[in-house]
Amino acid sequence: MTSNVHPVALDRAYRLLNHGPTVLVSARHDGVEDVMAAAWACALDYDPPKLTVVLDNATRTRGLVEGAGVFVIQVPTVAQAALAHAVGTTSLNDSPAKLRNAGVELIDMPGHDLPFVAGCSAWLACRMIPEPSIQSRYDLFVGEVIAAWADARVFRDGRWMFETADPALRSLHYVAGGHFYVIGDAIDVPPLPDPA
Amino acid sequence: MTSNVHPVALDRAYRLLNHGPTVLVSARHDGVEDVMAAAWACALDYDPPKLTVVLDNATRTRGLVEGAGVFVIQVPTVAQAALAHAVGTTSLNDSPAKLRNAGVELIDMPGHDLPFVAGCSAWLACRMIPEPSIQSRYDLFVGEVIAAWADARVFRDGRWMFETADPALRSLHYVAGGHFYVIGDAIDVPPLPDPA
Repeated sequence: MTSNVHPVALDRAYRLLNHGPTVLVSARHDGVEDVMAAAWACALDYDPPKLTVVLDNATRTRGLVEGAGVFVIQVPTVAQAALAHAVGTTSLNDSPAKLRNAGVELIDMPGHDLPFVAGCSAWLACRMIPEPSIQSRYDLFVGEVIAAWADARVFRDGRWMFETADPALRSLHYVAGGHFYVIGDAIDVPPLPDPA
Repeated sequence: MTSNVHPVALDRAYRLLNHGPTVLVSARHDGVEDVMAAAWACALDYDPPKLTVVLDNATRTRGLVEGAGVFVIQVPTVAQAALAHAVGTTSLNDSPAKLRNAGVELIDMPGHDLPFVAGCSAWLACRMIPEPSIQSRYDLFVGEVIAAWADARVFRDGRWMFETADPALRSLHYVAGGHFYVIGDAIDVPPLPDPA
């Protein structure tokens, strides 16, 4: 990892997902690694931080998550739009060279046997909380965030800095058919006055 | 409603949430109406469309959703940032005039006994799918979208038009402490070439 990557306090980890970015999900099991894109990932709790993610039964990544019991949710950048779309529209089942063809480089984080995608703006290492009923009926998985990191050029002191960072580091927000939006300008709403 | 509001086909309704906007949740039960903001809402399925939303036990809205069994998820606009923050930081339990103070105007849609917030860009009428276990343990609610509408100035032909619409109609993406981001520019990633 480059020196820009720094740990994020667990009680601030929800902020990495709070604005609704499209994410990449990665996992490794029995020597197989896969990465997929997911627009349906969402914060679920603050502290300990939890999240939900929808993993379709047809994806290879889902089986790796179920097998390993751990996975990574990471936030791709504008510079990775083609990568995100590629891993979201090809399956490792059909294309064994999926990750190489998509330009995915996997990196390590000390102390975690997990495949992290290089070049993202934030990474959340998660432990799957088994919920067989909702996994089966809704393809919905619950994870507890056990560690988090971010690129200090765009997230530091517990907050995103999209308004001042390199625009290539902004988050992606997928709609459909290869059509993404990039996160935009900031708005600050002042606190409400105390009622009289 | 103004003439800009038009129905959205149910198999396109997921697109209203796919880019991860902060939403407003509204419900009515036993003559009580409430509206809250929620950053933790997410699409869950395509057709029939379903979604998840986290409703903290301390909110009055949660009790109304549980009582009525139906609720609305709507997408507020940049022009409603102060309204969204106000309904997200005050409780009807403490402030009976919450909705009036926040500037909320509730409107009807024909055929639905639900309180819709005027001025949003999209509305999803939902039926709660009872999941007592995850409601209790995670504050997580599942809804099936039974009807949807959008403001045709910013969503039409099944897609958002943020790049060409009035910027005041863009979606909000909340982080924390009154700090929102507005959805920004579009990126289109071309389809992958067929493998040789």
